[in-house]
Amino acid sequence: MIPVMDHDALRLFLEDEFAQVAQDFRIEAVTSEGIILRLKVAEGHLRPGGTVSGPTLFALADVAVYLAILSRIGPVALAVTTNASIDFLRKPPAGRDLLGEVRLLKLGRTLAVGDVLIRSDGLDDPVARASMTYSIPPKG
Amino acid sequence: MIPVMDHDALRLFLEDEFAQVAQDFRIEAVTSEGIILRLKVAEGHLRPGGTVSGPTLFALADVAVYLAILSRIGPVALAVTTNASIDFLRKPPAGRDLLGEVRLLKLGRTLAVGDVLIRSDGLDDPVARASMTYSIPPKG
Amino acid sequence: MIPVMDHDALRLFLEDEFAQVAQDFRIEAVTSEGIILRLKVAEGHLRPGGTVSGPTLFALADVAVYLAILSRIGPVALAVTTNASIDFLRKPPAGRDLLGEVRLLKLGRTLAVGDVLIRSDGLDDPVARASMTYSIPPKG
Amino acid sequence: MIPVMDHDALRLFLEDEFAQVAQDFRIEAVTSEGIILRLKVAEGHLRPGGTVSGPTLFALADVAVYLAILSRIGPVALAVTTNASIDFLRKPPAGRDLLGEVRLLKLGRTLAVGDVLIRSDGLDDPVARASMTYSIPPKG
Repeated sequence: MIPVMDHDALRLFLEDEFAQVAQDFRIEAVTSEGIILRLKVAEGHLRPGGTVSGPTLFALADVAVYLAILSRIGPVALAVTTNASIDFLRKPPAGRDLLGEVRLLKLGRTLAVGDVLIRSDGLDDPVARASMTYSIPPKG
Repeated sequence: MIPVMDHDALRLFLEDEFAQVAQDFRIEAVTSEGIILRLKVAEGHLRPGGTVSGPTLFALADVAVYLAILSRIGPVALAVTTNASIDFLRKPPAGRDLLGEVRLLKLGRTLAVGDVLIRSDGLDDPVARASMTYSIPPKG
Repeated sequence: MIPVMDHDALRLFLEDEFAQVAQDFRIEAVTSEGIILRLKVAEGHLRPGGTVSGPTLFALADVAVYLAILSRIGPVALAVTTNASIDFLRKPPAGRDLLGEVRLLKLGRTLAVGDVLIRSDGLDDPVARASMTYSIPPKG
Repeated sequence: MIPVMDHDALRLFLEDEFAQVAQDFRIEAVTSEGIILRLKVAEGHLRPGGTVSGPTLFALADVAVYLAILSRIGPVALAVTTNASIDFLRKPPAGRDLLGEVRLLKLGRTLAVGDVLIRSDGLDDPVARASMTYSIPPKG
């Protein structure tokens, strides 16, 4: 599971393929287990009461594991999410970015699986944990 | 599990508590098992390629089960999602609204659970299935 | 999704391929949505306190969705469970069999997905809900 | 999350409360994040073909996270599993014990959440990943 896309290659891919949301994210690091992805929390990510919304946490988990997979298999734009399981552990406060730390667990021929632990920047306790499965299209 | 909020009461609650997204949704029916909620699919819900995005499906599932619970226990604005599990089954085409059909499975003292089957309007095969758990705050 | 294996064909398959546990199960019906599978609850399925154990509920869900898939695609002995998500809703009392009602949600080329609602025989409220994903080996 | 039950206290609890299965398990360590639990794989845990069965992996995950929670909150015999989500990543070969490494993610007043990575003893790649939620009964 040696990376085939580095930080800059992932960033360019994100800007090309997810143009509408690319400015929300920043790739912090490509790690030995996966990647670390930052979500720059802004007004549009909040719910009334001032916590980050569920769809925003889902989006962070989805993009983070997706990019972690691509960092190992290269830019396969068509990989599709087939399953997501998320535990919401604590309310993520407004005013802090979110950091998603991905562990790749399986890179198979047809399925890839990773999990991600999401923390508010500067706080220890995780706010959410998610595992995501992606179907990889056959080469051809 | 007899409803205590009808269609109009749920609609008003949605408009009050989720003002930013209320116009995206329409309550189709309060049913014997839960509710049916429509997501009016618009440009902002799509991914490149023209399918509805994952975070949009998550939001539909989350709001649908949330409103179904409230239809039975009344307007408890603070119920919190603790777990979500989603199977993405088929790509939802652009140009069709999505309909989420909720079955309430448990309304306990501290936890409520429901699942939702999501279809593109006019098509038989489901595009996603989700189950959601909510923590209900203690009465005080 | 017209069945290609009927009640008797499924029963023979179960006895051949799951000889150790076949006597625990009975196929109640092949339905338009999937199948209904009975687990004959016995002493070995119980936890201290007299409720059916979690691994037993998992096994019922797994076998039920597996057989429902085979009822549509024929006896592919090697389909593998890749994901399971289970909500435990109520304690299943001892002294009642369990009935798992399967809905097949997707029968794709490489993945099949079904969910199952589990009830104690004679009681209305479900004791568990599970969704299961199986990887189908390529033909060849 | 400092442990309040050590290795020996957990072992005694396991023998008292799970007498039927206690001999299958061995507590390897109480760690800073949770515990490590060994399943001594035997004939009864195998499926035809010689891999460890799904219900066995479920049981390992369930007991491991349960004991990890108790190691922090003390012997509350009535905590109940409310949700389990499992990814089956690779077939666990027969002839090797399984090791489940638990990370406690939340120890709340009413809910506790942990995840567990399961490996075959001596092999690097995980065979399964599970997250489990438990409802903690109110003190009284």
